[in-house]
Amino acid sequence: MEQRDSETAPTLGVGLIGYAFMGAAHSQGWRTAGRVFDLPLRPVLAAVAGRDRAAVHAAAARHGWAAAETDWRRLIARDDVQLVDICTPGDRHAEIAVAALDAGKHVLCEKPLANTVAEAEAMTEAAERARSRGQVAMVGFNYRRVPAIALARRLVEEGRIGALRHVRLTYLQDWLVAPDFPLTWRLERQHAGSGALGDLGAHIVDLAQFLAGEPLAGVSAQLETFVRERPLLAGVSAGPGASGGAGRGPVTVDDAAVFTGRLASGALATFEASRMAPGRKNALRLEISGSLGSLAFDLERLNELLYHDHREPAATAGFRRILVTEPDHPYLEAWWPPGHVLGYEHTFAHQARDLVLAIAAGADPSPSFADGLQVQRVLAAVEESAANNAVYTPVPVTRPASPPSATSAPAAAARTEAQV
Amino acid sequence: MEQRDSETAPTLGVGLIGYAFMGAAHSQGWRTAGRVFDLPLRPVLAAVAGRDRAAVHAAAARHGWAAAETDWRRLIARDDVQLVDICTPGDRHAEIAVAALDAGKHVLCEKPLANTVAEAEAMTEAAERARSRGQVAMVGFNYRRVPAIALARRLVEEGRIGALRHVRLTYLQDWLVAPDFPLTWRLERQHAGSGALGDLGAHIVDLAQFLAGEPLAGVSAQLETFVRERPLLAGVSAGPGASGGAGRGPVTVDDAAVFTGRLASGALATFEASRMAPGRKNALRLEISGSLGSLAFDLERLNELLYHDHREPAATAGFRRILVTEPDHPYLEAWWPPGHVLGYEHTFAHQARDLVLAIAAGADPSPSFADGLQVQRVLAAVEESAANNAVYTPVPVTRPASPPSATSAPAAAARTEAQV
Amino acid sequence: MEQRDSETAPTLGVGLIGYAFMGAAHSQGWRTAGRVFDLPLRPVLAAVAGRDRAAVHAAAARHGWAAAETDWRRLIARDDVQLVDICTPGDRHAEIAVAALDAGKHVLCEKPLANTVAEAEAMTEAAERARSRGQVAMVGFNYRRVPAIALARRLVEEGRIGALRHVRLTYLQDWLVAPDFPLTWRLERQHAGSGALGDLGAHIVDLAQFLAGEPLAGVSAQLETFVRERPLLAGVSAGPGASGGAGRGPVTVDDAAVFTGRLASGALATFEASRMAPGRKNALRLEISGSLGSLAFDLERLNELLYHDHREPAATAGFRRILVTEPDHPYLEAWWPPGHVLGYEHTFAHQARDLVLAIAAGADPSPSFADGLQVQRVLAAVEESAANNAVYTPVPVTRPASPPSATSAPAAAARTEAQV
Amino acid sequence: MEQRDSETAPTLGVGLIGYAFMGAAHSQGWRTAGRVFDLPLRPVLAAVAGRDRAAVHAAAARHGWAAAETDWRRLIARDDVQLVDICTPGDRHAEIAVAALDAGKHVLCEKPLANTVAEAEAMTEAAERARSRGQVAMVGFNYRRVPAIALARRLVEEGRIGALRHVRLTYLQDWLVAPDFPLTWRLERQHAGSGALGDLGAHIVDLAQFLAGEPLAGVSAQLETFVRERPLLAGVSAGPGASGGAGRGPVTVDDAAVFTGRLASGALATFEASRMAPGRKNALRLEISGSLGSLAFDLERLNELLYHDHREPAATAGFRRILVTEPDHPYLEAWWPPGHVLGYEHTFAHQARDLVLAIAAGADPSPSFADGLQVQRVLAAVEESAANNAVYTPVPVTRPASPPSATSAPAAAARTEAQV
Repeated sequence: MEQRDSETAPTLGVGLIGYAFMGAAHSQGWRTAGRVFDLPLRPVLAAVAGRDRAAVHAAAARHGWAAAETDWRRLIARDDVQLVDICTPGDRHAEIAVAALDAGKHVLCEKPLANTVAEAEAMTEAAERARSRGQVAMVGFNYRRVPAIALARRLVEEGRIGALRHVRLTYLQDWLVAPDFPLTWRLERQHAGSGALGDLGAHIVDLAQFLAGEPLAGVSAQLETFVRERPLLAGVSAGPGASGGAGRGPVTVDDAAVFTGRLASGALATFEASRMAPGRKNALRLEISGSLGSLAFDLERLNELLYHDHREPAATAGFRRILVTEPDHPYLEAWWPPGHVLGYEHTFAHQARDLVLAIAAGADPSPSFADGLQVQRVLAAVEESAANNAVYTPVPVTRPASPPSATSAPAAAARTEAQV
Repeated sequence: MEQRDSETAPTLGVGLIGYAFMGAAHSQGWRTAGRVFDLPLRPVLAAVAGRDRAAVHAAAARHGWAAAETDWRRLIARDDVQLVDICTPGDRHAEIAVAALDAGKHVLCEKPLANTVAEAEAMTEAAERARSRGQVAMVGFNYRRVPAIALARRLVEEGRIGALRHVRLTYLQDWLVAPDFPLTWRLERQHAGSGALGDLGAHIVDLAQFLAGEPLAGVSAQLETFVRERPLLAGVSAGPGASGGAGRGPVTVDDAAVFTGRLASGALATFEASRMAPGRKNALRLEISGSLGSLAFDLERLNELLYHDHREPAATAGFRRILVTEPDHPYLEAWWPPGHVLGYEHTFAHQARDLVLAIAAGADPSPSFADGLQVQRVLAAVEESAANNAVYTPVPVTRPASPPSATSAPAAAARTEAQV
Repeated sequence: MEQRDSETAPTLGVGLIGYAFMGAAHSQGWRTAGRVFDLPLRPVLAAVAGRDRAAVHAAAARHGWAAAETDWRRLIARDDVQLVDICTPGDRHAEIAVAALDAGKHVLCEKPLANTVAEAEAMTEAAERARSRGQVAMVGFNYRRVPAIALARRLVEEGRIGALRHVRLTYLQDWLVAPDFPLTWRLERQHAGSGALGDLGAHIVDLAQFLAGEPLAGVSAQLETFVRERPLLAGVSAGPGASGGAGRGPVTVDDAAVFTGRLASGALATFEASRMAPGRKNALRLEISGSLGSLAFDLERLNELLYHDHREPAATAGFRRILVTEPDHPYLEAWWPPGHVLGYEHTFAHQARDLVLAIAAGADPSPSFADGLQVQRVLAAVEESAANNAVYTPVPVTRPASPPSATSAPAAAARTEAQV
Repeated sequence: MEQRDSETAPTLGVGLIGYAFMGAAHSQGWRTAGRVFDLPLRPVLAAVAGRDRAAVHAAAARHGWAAAETDWRRLIARDDVQLVDICTPGDRHAEIAVAALDAGKHVLCEKPLANTVAEAEAMTEAAERARSRGQVAMVGFNYRRVPAIALARRLVEEGRIGALRHVRLTYLQDWLVAPDFPLTWRLERQHAGSGALGDLGAHIVDLAQFLAGEPLAGVSAQLETFVRERPLLAGVSAGPGASGGAGRGPVTVDDAAVFTGRLASGALATFEASRMAPGRKNALRLEISGSLGSLAFDLERLNELLYHDHREPAATAGFRRILVTEPDHPYLEAWWPPGHVLGYEHTFAHQARDLVLAIAAGADPSPSFADGLQVQRVLAAVEESAANNAVYTPVPVTRPASPPSATSAPAAAARTEAQV
């Protein structure tokens, strides 16, 4: 294969809005993607935006962004920015994304796509208008880019596990177990939209639909907030709903969400998202059972996929632990030799790669804003069901039946040089 | 400690009804309990009953029962039988158990206690009447006697994991995945009552209530039958409902049940029971999250309990794998040195031991028929919810708030000789 | 298959010498084998022997032996004893085994076969003389009867892992970590022969040779005693070598043995045996690497075998966890449904079954006294090497090249009734 | 803490020699370290050197090096290069490192330090001369920078596992299992020095000494080459030793090395390094047993450390799985929230960070060239022992008794901004 000289490839100017945890992770993705993968467009870290002048300049220096802006509208307006990467809290997503799309920019928006279905619909409409102008809008469900999960999707697509019967997904963390953890924006409904549901549940809903290749048809749900008041952050007013006296304010989002569901095909689904599970740090675990086999995965061991082929002779059948570091595993040919494992942040380099490929190819991104909207509809149905005695609540569907695979055709263009 | 001479202890004559899988397992339990534990009563395998004369005599010879009966009523009537052990399909439980109790016998009845709430209520009433006469009635939720589970209960009782927030239990098997697996009695509603729900779900409902020490307050459920017709067993008529033409009949029970629930304290519970999960052979897995820690267990690794103490310094905290084979673990002082693991059938020896201790002490057994009734009510609520769009369905509660622990006082009398 | 009536089968009278840990385990094996497997001879627990009259009678009552003897010679002389089962410390093995064989009895002798090569040679000669008279002599390397290990041997025999390159075995325990653990007979050379080497190392040497199907050609070894003095047991004199003052005596065996070796074929072998490994309770772990695949096992998870088939496509290859509970796994068709796990003591029921089958068939047992002698020669070579700066020390070989498989022809006769 | 502006920190010009697998990994480390950690010197990727003009320019563009050189001497001579990073095959290490040190540059040299003890001695002498001029020379045993391993070292230093009794380390890969894998430079003694021994064994020897905090006193070893001829790479002559006819040449290094050893304190050590273990991709596993506890680690799960504290009550003791992603774990405060795992390449960013800190502080690096020399002496003793019937062969020691910890004082200066 001919070597593309990455220095001479056309550039893609990236503008980042927000520079906290997700901004740092996206920065690492943008810095790395073009160094590891052969890309048709060379990502350039053009500018970062944030409200605090000193902080945004420090972030630019730290993370390698060439310029800093204190107004996201000015970032969108920059000529050297072709792609706007949105890493703000969810309540700002819709306004920024629609503005960026209307300004002719490609957009990458962190998940969940929005805080409400109405916002997500507006964003999806903007994305569809922009699509006709050649723009691409992707939502940042980065876990689709964990190699083991991309491999799982490939095996499902190949029919290796047959007709789906069960998907079961949990996403457990424990950072809210301490009752004195403070009342950050992630615990306030007006900023975060919801709690564990939107933060963690959105990921596992997206993965269920991605892996199954079909949407959820309905859900039955319960939500709970175990710790209902928490210490205020310094300098933050508790607001009119504060009942806890001086220094404490009400938690207005869920601590945990449990729900069952049906996929369009009739398969049963179970979900649990919680930030109150001691000892589980980032335990996104999933298992899929089909008529011919099963797959299982745990994000805390993200280089491993378990696969059981039910057609094998029983005497030697069993879940095999695939160490997903082989050259013919998704994304892996660009990385290290077998057995040299990847980490969490690699998903952002993979996301950057796939987005660049989609932009260069004029292809639909995966996951699209429509995919993000579909997740939002599930989250809304979860809240509606939970408010109605867990009654089974259908989820409206508008998105196409089968999503493009994460490793579809354009990916073939992204081979890297041999690593010897 | 003084050595009790097990040859001189008074005897307890046991009569077994049913000698298939469960009967074989109970036989092993009765043969072994008195050899391993110091018991105040020496179990004697007095008689076994079954309808087929040749088969029941063969079973008696094989499993070591001194006599064989072809009519369970004659077994109950035998003077050398003080305890009736019921291992028949669920549709016979109520009739036999009530008859045995009314005849003055102690009873051990396999789980689920019955096929309906009404039957379970009648049985519980019979048990309460008999209780006043000094008789004991236990239901065979043998997994309470897995040492790791008994240890988990002890840790919960000691407050080691604090206030409960989550219990999550799954019980997955795969023996119905093949569509040509035949239509046995376990797939017929009139004999089995329900499918995965009663067979597997009953175990995890019991364990949730046992471990939490409180009943389920309500559930929201979905049931599914993925393979709706199966080949008839030779010599069995399909009955009027058979739509599959020659040789196939309808499956009238569920293949899988998924449900969420609330414990009385408000903790969230999730359950999944399925016989359609390829590669999962006997995967009863549970995890409990509290305010101070977590516990996790997998029946396929039944000698291990995972425990996370959230109060430890974060730098060295983590789920510890406790190999539950130490002398101060439940039941273990009577067995082998540390690290020499136990298996599935040991639960039946432990069950026999605990029942003998309860009988000798005149104590309430755990689990009692009332516990079995409470499980039955949950199963009924699951079916009701599933028939009503998964709406949250309360579970009536009559049983006492806190069950006696599996390793309570009488156990102290069951020390065995030192194993050197 | 026709059902053999186990009550009418001819009996095999068993006499047990020694009734501590190993005696209890063997008792459970003898009580159980005929209840689970269809055997051509019905084992009868005829008599147990021990020096302390009260204790041996208590043991007889506890474990179900019909009679008790205080002199092992009288036990051997009993007409109702056809098989002598030796569970004494190693320094008594040779005298008893030779006497029993010369008296025309079959013999089962605990491992290691003897404390010295000379004793083992005398025993093997006695076994060969007796063999011509139709007697059978087996050494109790019970771990060959762990189903997962028997399956591993079957896979090696079938060529599934190709030509052997590596065997690596460790056997770690931790009961000697506490420096105040007392000076029991197992820590005295005159009784135990050696320490971790004979106790644990003998097992892994036997398994290496069993699994490979070939003997060790030589070894290079180091031994160590970390805690050189320990408290005396009450009433025991420290002897002339005691340097520790009142109440302590010298440990005269090794705490740990590490050695490398070569199999006859040239494959490399590594061994470590230690009773000083905190947290490892019974961690016999082995891994075999061949030209076509690998196998791995851990006794603390004795129902699992890991198998990697190197011929599979890399994208889905990986160590599969075989839960060794399927009907076509060794010994399993007689036990419970898939996923219902076995424990440590089952190996003794399997050993009893295989010995009964060998006796009934007039077949060579596996492992034979010759196999036990070969292990003894390896242990002697280990000690010789350790005394000579770890220089590679050849092991003399006289035993036949390939041992009979644990699951060879006679086993087919031991099917049990269907477990439904 | 005051925020250092990384843009205004003084720069450290890095020059890389070699750009294959290791060069790519080091490049990623240099690009990332200053973005993640607050460093007193800002690494600048000044130039890369390689013999093939087109290839080295492509590598420079790909990996972000500002300039390319085709002669390593010119790279050393560049004014903008203060640190020379050597990623060539081992036979070039000595010449380049000595030249760079003599030219006044700091040096980072890949492991093993050299192909012979003589070379390593010369390099160490050059490093000591340079040390007096303020230069720093580090050898690239990057696995010391796996956070779990750095944590293990911290726990050993704190006395958490007490006095060492055992270290056991294996490093298994499988890329040479296929007999048609070609005869690359890594299989030729004149280029690679040795085979699995230097490639894999060097890592585990270094880790044993690092974790124990003391050198190996002697070893007893066996080496083996299972596949003795392999296909020649296109365009490579087989040389005079080629006996395999057209197209094949002799493998002149070991495929596997097994050895036992003693640490200076008397603890026993076992080692196995092999590239012939099917299914083991990068299986560096280690376990340390002390008088108070144990530690275990597997590089294929590099975010996890297992720790057993033997002082805990037995009922709740067990190996705990520490997910090494907490803010107070080594290196972790600069990365992601708990549970967001790292990968292989992060070790190179950590190595770059620690080297920069040592240079800025004028401190001794860890591991120093003296540490690398000590490893080389062990490798030489292994080869000598293997050539002499595995006789125990002492290892000369000159290095200081206790190495500086990986996370010693200067590290405190490398805090990064808060990741919120």
